[in-house]
Amino acid sequence: MRTRAAVALEAGKPLEVMEVNLEGPKAGEVLVEIKATGICHTDEFTLSGADPEGLFPAILGHEGAGVVLEVGPGVTSLKPGDHVIPLYTAECRECEYCLHPKTNLCQKVRATQGQGVMPDGTSRFSMLDGTPILHYMGCSTFSNHTVLPEISLAKIRPDAPFDKVCYIGCGVTTGIGAVIYTAKVEIGSRAIVFGLGGIGLNVIQGLRLAGADQIVGVDLNNDKKPMAEKFGMTDFVNPNDVDGDLVGHLVELTGGGADYTFDATGNVNVMRAALESAHKGWGESIIIGVAPAGAEISTRPFQLVTGRVWRGTAFGGARGRTDVPQIVDWYMDGKIEIDPMITHTLSLDDINKGFDLMHQGKSIRSVVVY
Amino acid sequence: MRTRAAVALEAGKPLEVMEVNLEGPKAGEVLVEIKATGICHTDEFTLSGADPEGLFPAILGHEGAGVVLEVGPGVTSLKPGDHVIPLYTAECRECEYCLHPKTNLCQKVRATQGQGVMPDGTSRFSMLDGTPILHYMGCSTFSNHTVLPEISLAKIRPDAPFDKVCYIGCGVTTGIGAVIYTAKVEIGSRAIVFGLGGIGLNVIQGLRLAGADQIVGVDLNNDKKPMAEKFGMTDFVNPNDVDGDLVGHLVELTGGGADYTFDATGNVNVMRAALESAHKGWGESIIIGVAPAGAEISTRPFQLVTGRVWRGTAFGGARGRTDVPQIVDWYMDGKIEIDPMITHTLSLDDINKGFDLMHQGKSIRSVVVY
Repeated sequence: MRTRAAVALEAGKPLEVMEVNLEGPKAGEVLVEIKATGICHTDEFTLSGADPEGLFPAILGHEGAGVVLEVGPGVTSLKPGDHVIPLYTAECRECEYCLHPKTNLCQKVRATQGQGVMPDGTSRFSMLDGTPILHYMGCSTFSNHTVLPEISLAKIRPDAPFDKVCYIGCGVTTGIGAVIYTAKVEIGSRAIVFGLGGIGLNVIQGLRLAGADQIVGVDLNNDKKPMAEKFGMTDFVNPNDVDGDLVGHLVELTGGGADYTFDATGNVNVMRAALESAHKGWGESIIIGVAPAGAEISTRPFQLVTGRVWRGTAFGGARGRTDVPQIVDWYMDGKIEIDPMITHTLSLDDINKGFDLMHQGKSIRSVVVY
Repeated sequence: MRTRAAVALEAGKPLEVMEVNLEGPKAGEVLVEIKATGICHTDEFTLSGADPEGLFPAILGHEGAGVVLEVGPGVTSLKPGDHVIPLYTAECRECEYCLHPKTNLCQKVRATQGQGVMPDGTSRFSMLDGTPILHYMGCSTFSNHTVLPEISLAKIRPDAPFDKVCYIGCGVTTGIGAVIYTAKVEIGSRAIVFGLGGIGLNVIQGLRLAGADQIVGVDLNNDKKPMAEKFGMTDFVNPNDVDGDLVGHLVELTGGGADYTFDATGNVNVMRAALESAHKGWGESIIIGVAPAGAEISTRPFQLVTGRVWRGTAFGGARGRTDVPQIVDWYMDGKIEIDPMITHTLSLDDINKGFDLMHQGKSIRSVVVY
């Protein structure tokens, strides 16, 4: 079949919207009509050329929602008409990782996904002249139609709006999951969130959902304050307004340090501040942000010996097929908010405007609706 | 009263065995006759002058066992004749830390202990000319008699031999506790222990007690192998004998990385190797060793984002009054071994020989018996 897609032909260039060929689903695969997709910093990271593992030409996009059109041989958990969210972290429920109680990093399709192909080693996408186009993060939601492994699709309720729940495919789950699945924050906890972009806001509402007593937001931009307060932030700190040491200020503000701290900046110096503003004895710090290639975190080991714990999280520790449908329910039940974070809605033809808005810091999340 | 003690008059000098004055116990304090004490690297660290918080003159020693002779006003949990192990990590059971489920770092007497005095701000020890001598780590077990807060004493069974269970006052609990209380190692786990000195050996027997399937020991000295095997090590790796990357070798040896890794070296480069040889997705690395002042650990945040966890432990995460008596039971029941690690027994007059043996690498643990 043919479909329309925004293709990343090479690093550093705008996407080009064009018709492309899409082969149907092979064994274990599913053809999905994408109804909406968010534009995430990770797409930008790859498109810019900064991602050392970026491959071109490719169809980017990994934060979508859509409807199953056709299933390949052997697919049993999905049927045409099912509403789904693509998962860049699959959940096969049978690999060593899926069967381990402490991780969500299913490895079943990891290697081929990293190479931009389906598990059989080939791509379903090609130019009209036959040149193959690579998949991206196993999702390629910047195409109106795409093919994914069955294990890379979460089946969700049919009444959830695509143009909102697509955000659960990455940002919402990453932020809320870091709180719920990775940190396992307890009711009454005190927390600090570094960076009040889209991920930080979702960490904040995750903390509210978990019943945190104090939610401190840290950002260099005072304009972030009102929205963060709307999502549950109780205290705002702009490091530029702190006399002296930021960590000391945060430790005092939280009565000895926070039970949980979250880095949503990707800056390794901030990651260190996040660890060191965690409470002696039991404070845990969770790294969410992706650091530049080669950057390293450091601290004195004394920080850990006196009880702080340093963790990271990917896709919020969520097991996609199991947890994503639940997060959709939370949204539909009003336990979490998404609508105020979708600041811009665009057509596929305008997708490059979404990247412009991101660069200009004008959007929290832009969503392309097909 | 007067008692005999080995006094650290100044940094870098041998201890001087002499008669000293000891005041009786004040409110909440207990007079203990020390029957045996181990000589630990931490005593050496302070005596050498490398410890930036070291104070002199002081009576060192923090790994003892003895008998209660007299209790001060208000002491209710101990009486003369009780057998006890002094605790450098107190357990008051009422501070914010003791009431928190995730830490053993009781803060009740922390500040005064660090200043070398009892909770009322004064020392019970003095020279015969009246010059005060400071306490050390709240214990000062290099004195035949000493005074401690009631909350700094674990009551143990009376049939346990002092010259063996004194080692539970630090080294045994630090190593075994890192496995049992901090890492909470599960049956069937794979583990790597870096550094096969006294702490490393106790980590190994802690892993055996916890039912680990694979226990890899890493040390630059092949002579450490037989003893480590005796305590449960299943594989030995000398980094000098590894072609290429040590971490890669260990990851392969453990089938993808260890579930738990432990640093018992205090070397920050080893701490990094320990983290990075933990299994992707769920491996946890525990820092036990004390690094030189100012040294820092570092790694790429990717190591944490892909599921590794970095922790530290102090006194093995043990709550002294609660857990130390249980570890004594484990020894008496034959669940753990101590005797082979007590390589030398000395009189107080020969205590400096114990430090010499440590410097020469000839001892695992030297114990002074009064």
